[in-house]
Amino acid sequence: MCELLGMSANVPTDICFSFTGLMQRGGGTGPHRDGWGIAFYEGKGVRCFHDPAPSIESEVANFVRNYPIKSHVVISHIRQANVGEIRLENTHPFSRELWGRSWTFAHNGQLDKCLFDWPLGYYQPIGSTDSEYAFCWLIGQIRERYPEPPADICELADFIRQQCDKLRELGVYNMLLSESNYLFAYCTTKLSWLTRRAPFGEASLKDCDVTVDFVQETTPNDVVTVVATEPLTDNEAWQALTCGQMVVFHHGIPLIDQCAAMVVD
Amino acid sequence: MCELLGMSANVPTDICFSFTGLMQRGGGTGPHRDGWGIAFYEGKGVRCFHDPAPSIESEVANFVRNYPIKSHVVISHIRQANVGEIRLENTHPFSRELWGRSWTFAHNGQLDKCLFDWPLGYYQPIGSTDSEYAFCWLIGQIRERYPEPPADICELADFIRQQCDKLRELGVYNMLLSESNYLFAYCTTKLSWLTRRAPFGEASLKDCDVTVDFVQETTPNDVVTVVATEPLTDNEAWQALTCGQMVVFHHGIPLIDQCAAMVVD
Repeated sequence: MCELLGMSANVPTDICFSFTGLMQRGGGTGPHRDGWGIAFYEGKGVRCFHDPAPSIESEVANFVRNYPIKSHVVISHIRQANVGEIRLENTHPFSRELWGRSWTFAHNGQLDKCLFDWPLGYYQPIGSTDSEYAFCWLIGQIRERYPEPPADICELADFIRQQCDKLRELGVYNMLLSESNYLFAYCTTKLSWLTRRAPFGEASLKDCDVTVDFVQETTPNDVVTVVATEPLTDNEAWQALTCGQMVVFHHGIPLIDQCAAMVVD
Repeated sequence: MCELLGMSANVPTDICFSFTGLMQRGGGTGPHRDGWGIAFYEGKGVRCFHDPAPSIESEVANFVRNYPIKSHVVISHIRQANVGEIRLENTHPFSRELWGRSWTFAHNGQLDKCLFDWPLGYYQPIGSTDSEYAFCWLIGQIRERYPEPPADICELADFIRQQCDKLRELGVYNMLLSESNYLFAYCTTKLSWLTRRAPFGEASLKDCDVTVDFVQETTPNDVVTVVATEPLTDNEAWQALTCGQMVVFHHGIPLIDQCAAMVVD
């Protein structure tokens, strides 16, 4: 299995604190030694860092942990390989262009091998993981249904959730997906989220002895949501998603009221 | 204008020496302050680093310069913006997937704005540069002509050269392109290359006081070709490409004998 980390924020925000916690699980407090990756959106642009080395030993991870890249949307993943060798091309997150947007995807779980019989359209996998295959299938479905972006985000979100429901029939499918504005989080077994906003307080990482006082790091208008496989802090109230649930975040805010259908199974 | 740097090698090779020279031109010995990027292929996988900050001041560039990533094919670019704002999404190299391969592209030059009237098919630009538009057009042409990869690399190379010839009619079009195995280098005004192989000697960068003795860094079977807008060293014999000329490199070797058509206009 793997671990996922996502962020959605209304101001460019660095994820150094959460990333520090996650990286400990890549060979330190967790067994996810088979590579890691992270994608930072800055407007429509995206920076990705990938490394097939364990995050706990990775010089690239060490650089990312100490270099505050500020972003509205982040997707990160640490890997414990099941399907697909430990190679750079099998390292999440995966990216493809659709509608002149860079879509980024990371998956936690394992899907039945009959997935590889599902026909693909436009997008072909570069590596050999079930995850990248599922992403190519999913984004191909979106492209076929919506050659142009739909005006209504709730309509798009509902379509994506329906496709994720199909993937869920093949096994464990926890997913983070973004096209630069929205963060789509879909759960089958394990995915929790937390929104930080004023009044801010202190947070302490579970995986190492690091505490941050967000009062010092933020302004009163900041809204930052973090999504993770397992809660990263031990003194905050994380909300667990349920099986088949999807939440869409925009500027740090879950679109629960706007798209009511999205948070029920 | 911008500067290009490419590498093709028969063994995984780091490009720290050449990259050190190139980065000086990003605000140091050259005026290319508007961002930089580099793509390293490792098998079918690719690592990209992009930064809209000047390379001479970039912490990411400093990291890449000091962290030896070993690769068979590298494409790098430093930017002096003409078309398109200084933003992450306008920073070369650009990437798209075709045939389950990650294609990477960087361009030096400027093309007439009527380029933006050329119809695109499958691939859409994410940013606003003429370069990314040209790439989307080019890779769309390749996809339309070859839905599956052709068996003959010379046939593919010849087709790519013909498309580059069309782009050249719109202005200055120096290009580096790869799909992970081959490095395609097309010239209209400025592009030079150099193959290093045994017996190796010393090389001195033009842009800063750095000399490397490749005897210490290589084995007798290594073959490494470097392609750059301007020669990076002042004590080696670089070969300049001519207008309309394309050379394809594979494992460090120019495919001149195999694909004779590729090196004539």
